[in-house]
Amino acid sequence: MKTVRIGLLGLGNVGAAFAKSVEDAREMIARRDRIDLVITRMGVADPGKTRPEWIPMDRVVGGWEAVVDSGEVDIVVELIGGVGEARKAVVRALERGLHVVSANKALLAREGVSLFGAACSGGGRLRFEAAVGGGVPVIAALTESLSGNRCTSIVGIVNGTCNYILSRMTEDGLSYGEALRSAQEKGFAESDPGFDVDGLDAAQKLQILSTIAFGIEVGPGEIYTEGITRVSPEDIELVSEFGYAIKLLAIARRSGHGVEMRVHPALVDQRHPLAAVRDEFNAFFLTGDLTGEIMLYGRGAGPSPTASAVLSDVLRLAAGDPGNDRCWTWDDVEHVPIGDVVTGYHMFFPVLDRAGVIGRIASTLGSYGINIESAHAHLPPGRSGQGMVQILSRRARERDVRAALDTVTGLPVLTGKPWFYRIEG
Amino acid sequence: MKTVRIGLLGLGNVGAAFAKSVEDAREMIARRDRIDLVITRMGVADPGKTRPEWIPMDRVVGGWEAVVDSGEVDIVVELIGGVGEARKAVVRALERGLHVVSANKALLAREGVSLFGAACSGGGRLRFEAAVGGGVPVIAALTESLSGNRCTSIVGIVNGTCNYILSRMTEDGLSYGEALRSAQEKGFAESDPGFDVDGLDAAQKLQILSTIAFGIEVGPGEIYTEGITRVSPEDIELVSEFGYAIKLLAIARRSGHGVEMRVHPALVDQRHPLAAVRDEFNAFFLTGDLTGEIMLYGRGAGPSPTASAVLSDVLRLAAGDPGNDRCWTWDDVEHVPIGDVVTGYHMFFPVLDRAGVIGRIASTLGSYGINIESAHAHLPPGRSGQGMVQILSRRARERDVRAALDTVTGLPVLTGKPWFYRIEG
Repeated sequence: MKTVRIGLLGLGNVGAAFAKSVEDAREMIARRDRIDLVITRMGVADPGKTRPEWIPMDRVVGGWEAVVDSGEVDIVVELIGGVGEARKAVVRALERGLHVVSANKALLAREGVSLFGAACSGGGRLRFEAAVGGGVPVIAALTESLSGNRCTSIVGIVNGTCNYILSRMTEDGLSYGEALRSAQEKGFAESDPGFDVDGLDAAQKLQILSTIAFGIEVGPGEIYTEGITRVSPEDIELVSEFGYAIKLLAIARRSGHGVEMRVHPALVDQRHPLAAVRDEFNAFFLTGDLTGEIMLYGRGAGPSPTASAVLSDVLRLAAGDPGNDRCWTWDDVEHVPIGDVVTGYHMFFPVLDRAGVIGRIASTLGSYGINIESAHAHLPPGRSGQGMVQILSRRARERDVRAALDTVTGLPVLTGKPWFYRIEG
Repeated sequence: MKTVRIGLLGLGNVGAAFAKSVEDAREMIARRDRIDLVITRMGVADPGKTRPEWIPMDRVVGGWEAVVDSGEVDIVVELIGGVGEARKAVVRALERGLHVVSANKALLAREGVSLFGAACSGGGRLRFEAAVGGGVPVIAALTESLSGNRCTSIVGIVNGTCNYILSRMTEDGLSYGEALRSAQEKGFAESDPGFDVDGLDAAQKLQILSTIAFGIEVGPGEIYTEGITRVSPEDIELVSEFGYAIKLLAIARRSGHGVEMRVHPALVDQRHPLAAVRDEFNAFFLTGDLTGEIMLYGRGAGPSPTASAVLSDVLRLAAGDPGNDRCWTWDDVEHVPIGDVVTGYHMFFPVLDRAGVIGRIASTLGSYGINIESAHAHLPPGRSGQGMVQILSRRARERDVRAALDTVTGLPVLTGKPWFYRIEG
């Protein structure tokens, strides 16, 4: 039996869930893996705070230094969150040759590349399955299961808050505001929901996934990001008539031109497996040149799923597993700007209900080289004289679509600004 | 740069795809993992046979012994198939302390427990991601990603042939025979399809998954197995009116009573992610006590996905990764017989179209303690006097359901034998 000493940093919801899961699984792990897993130190900001009774207070110490520098831990589990202190703690641990498991999405997104470097030179290993997708093993899939593949694309539903809100709007016909309140009541959304609903959380996750899938450095501003606040139940209903669902997607795709990375609401065929991902669930649809399409689905957040992912990483390191902690080299790959992205579009034009309207809009789109798949007039009841034209395009360049829409906006038959959704998958 | 020498056994479709994938990925692997991966020997039954031009014939040798005993390989990749020679080769390699990667489902199902023992005592390690689910990393998920969990259930669509056939019947209204022919034309079914359509392939896969998920020994006859040959497009249409799809499911569930393992057609809620698994795709819906429900989806067969899984295992071993190759201990757990399984049932009763029929059937079911969720009379057009009663039960014990159906069969209003589908998920 080998004893492996864990130094836990942070005793919030996730930290407490992890400590509990170690206690609960300890006997199973000892019997199965011949490893005695012990949390020897728990570093917290306020060691005097009252904790649940089952926390062994004699192991609770103030600050991360008392854990990392103690000489009494083999693996540091960083569940502090944020970038400041967490970053210092992780770097110090790696430099000391300690292994580190982190669930810290912001840290990995912003500092991942430098942390991988610290791990490579310091001798400690860094694992971070829980940083993206909670209990869904997407990091292991990309770095290990697909390690013989060239990954060509990632299309993910990576934010449970947005997916829950869109599910309520789709299934219960709620407005965005009503659905957001429902998410807040259920604990799926913060009182200040911007980080989730504006797509920023999804962009951070995509940053991490793109980095490891394509071996590229991705800066924080390099992902085109739109949130879901402008999605309406009317849009959801209209696109459903064409067989589509609206999902907030995080998309990274590698082609001969470079890598495109973007987060935005998009239309997904209702028959696509991603369309069946509902409520607060996450899913990652990955394409490899050998394995083809695979999808991983599950709860992307929550103390227990996160603790599960952390514990799995801890066990890998405890077993002496080098795992996915390579000495990375970074490819210098072109980042494709959003204007150069090519995809299908579902466009909405608020118009006066007159003969010839579709023809004028379609001709304008055609003059920008945009091929139309189908065009439809829609006359909402009770708004006499006002209508809506929907046009579905074939694959077109976003720059051209935007330029065409600007021109269409100037047509006298338009009663408002047109808008669109990108069609994916 | 570390050189890792692979001895490949078998140069069929999968063997050739694997050899090609090593060539294609070699430079990427060298740059990224600092590992020079070389296939030094390729053991085949007939070394004189003409091979594709890119196969280096100077490395092709006759028989597995010339590979395993050569002293010139570090990792043996067993792609021979079958149990006889493959078993001998794998055991010899493990006893010699060589690492082994096998994609051999039959071998792992029948001999897994003894091979794990050979690996444990011999020093070689055995990995087998490709043995179940092709390119879908379900073995890694169960043994590594969920390693801190107690896995409580596996519900899988694990046979692409059956799922393709059921998809064609559901989406195109084909009969079973027509759908089977379509599958054969597409290369998804053998000319003798029994192993797939009778559920035997699914049962072998479930045997492997149950073994590693629950740490139990599972004999070949211990899984209750029904195939899809009796599913009709009429059944599919009738259950779809109740919001269900018919899928061939492989189910293993652990409870306080023991482990139940079964393969049969079952009804899945159309809104469940498993219902969105179509055509030849596979999916594994796993439940862990920490992580909750996760699902892995992808192509469960084919040379490239299989080669991808094998290569991923090879790279793990090449990196010195102990991975999932534990010295297993086996739990002695009760196997729950099918009669003791408790689930919901959708029952079909061919009847004379008379008043009071539902009442008589429902009373009989009630006398066996079966609670009815709903009962429906269905009068197919053009069959005057003949009808169908459908009854959906709450959760009931299968033994009681079967006994009740035997009694109902004796009622004078019945015009044929009743049948049923189990309702899962």
